[in-house]
Amino acid sequence: MNNMDKITIVKVGGAVVEDPLQLSQLLTDFSDIEGYKILVHGGGRKATKIAASLGVENKMVNGRRITDKDMLEVVTMVYGGLVNKNIVARLETLGENALGLTGADMNIIRSHKRPLKDGIDFGYVGDIEYTDGEKLAQLIKLGIIPVMAPLTHDGHGNILNTNADTIASETAKALVSYFQVTLIYSFEKKGVLKKPDNDESLIPVITREDFNKYIAEGTIAGGMIPKLENAFAAIDAGVKEVVITSASAIDGKHGTIIK
Amino acid sequence: MNNMDKITIVKVGGAVVEDPLQLSQLLTDFSDIEGYKILVHGGGRKATKIAASLGVENKMVNGRRITDKDMLEVVTMVYGGLVNKNIVARLETLGENALGLTGADMNIIRSHKRPLKDGIDFGYVGDIEYTDGEKLAQLIKLGIIPVMAPLTHDGHGNILNTNADTIASETAKALVSYFQVTLIYSFEKKGVLKKPDNDESLIPVITREDFNKYIAEGTIAGGMIPKLENAFAAIDAGVKEVVITSASAIDGKHGTIIK
Repeated sequence: MNNMDKITIVKVGGAVVEDPLQLSQLLTDFSDIEGYKILVHGGGRKATKIAASLGVENKMVNGRRITDKDMLEVVTMVYGGLVNKNIVARLETLGENALGLTGADMNIIRSHKRPLKDGIDFGYVGDIEYTDGEKLAQLIKLGIIPVMAPLTHDGHGNILNTNADTIASETAKALVSYFQVTLIYSFEKKGVLKKPDNDESLIPVITREDFNKYIAEGTIAGGMIPKLENAFAAIDAGVKEVVITSASAIDGKHGTIIK
Repeated sequence: MNNMDKITIVKVGGAVVEDPLQLSQLLTDFSDIEGYKILVHGGGRKATKIAASLGVENKMVNGRRITDKDMLEVVTMVYGGLVNKNIVARLETLGENALGLTGADMNIIRSHKRPLKDGIDFGYVGDIEYTDGEKLAQLIKLGIIPVMAPLTHDGHGNILNTNADTIASETAKALVSYFQVTLIYSFEKKGVLKKPDNDESLIPVITREDFNKYIAEGTIAGGMIPKLENAFAAIDAGVKEVVITSASAIDGKHGTIIK
């Protein structure tokens, strides 16, 4: 296992993607990462803005966005076209051999429309069934840098809106037979903090034992619990390291390292 | 040369792309083509419709569309996202290993912003400088079927709106060192006709000699002249065959064959 090539998968959220200065810095930092790599991007509010201009209603149920047919068209345009292709064009200026992908391309990520949950129909949202690590690895070993949009397909011709965090973790898991995988989740904080509002309280490394202890103590709570559960699930599946860090520190040496 | 693998490049225009029934038939026919292949698609009026809904004016000068900054955003979304990814997802249902590409992806097609012409600034329209046949051939030989949107980039981070016919012919020329190339232009007529309104007057084969004779006679005139000039330019560059045919007959055996 240790003789395998390393790969770094960076997930960047929509808020960074839609801020030109932050995106520019992120892309420069990403291009500085050595070796094989993948960028997974979120969508941002551009889709909501364009939807509003088109008269497409932004439907929410219990705080969750519903992707109806019209909104699906908007996210396919915005995430798959506007956001993805602009990131690709900018990475090319940095000398990176970037290739924009959705899950539909080469059937890389197959999903199914999310079933009703608590009676709520989330619409055209995809739950991932399968990620083709072999095809991705084949592209990557040619020196190609996949830039993945938060869209998958159901194998019946339908694109589905899909969570970028999940795309990043499923892709990481699918690649463990081919690479030593590091998965970097960038977000708005420096990492996992003991005190949510104090950047100085960063926890540099968390093991499963630490995690259980922090939960018992109440140090880690709320939305950070499922985030870390996902990280440990990736580790359990063979991912070497998961890093939760700020979008301005994606070198794998900052933030919280989960292993 | 004759030992090289064959490849078929099919260009389909926007009118077919936006008609669900015609598109469906075209994609089925395309999937029936054996061997290596590429689909190049136009944009269609969906971009104009979406632009209108967004309050983006469709600017025309002397009957030519001008791509301003806002329109560029719309065509990047619609051609690169909506149209391209839906075609890819549908080809996947037909068992085709389709990969959506713009010229920005892997730096496949580099262009520059068209210079002023007769004092007209066409805006963010790309004139192609270079097509990377080697990288495309590498993907194709992995069994990947490129689906190319009418977008390129300038190498400075800018996407440019680019004519799909030109993308098809430049791609064909760039691949002649790697494949025996057949280039199929599908359009609304059966092929090159002696009498524009009579499908029965189809000319099945045209050589350069025939072409000169038809022009001298006045049999071929108007917009068909530059179309055929482009076809002969492709032949001169090493493309084996160019076929001008109806979108419902893209098997390479119908329409007008230029060689």
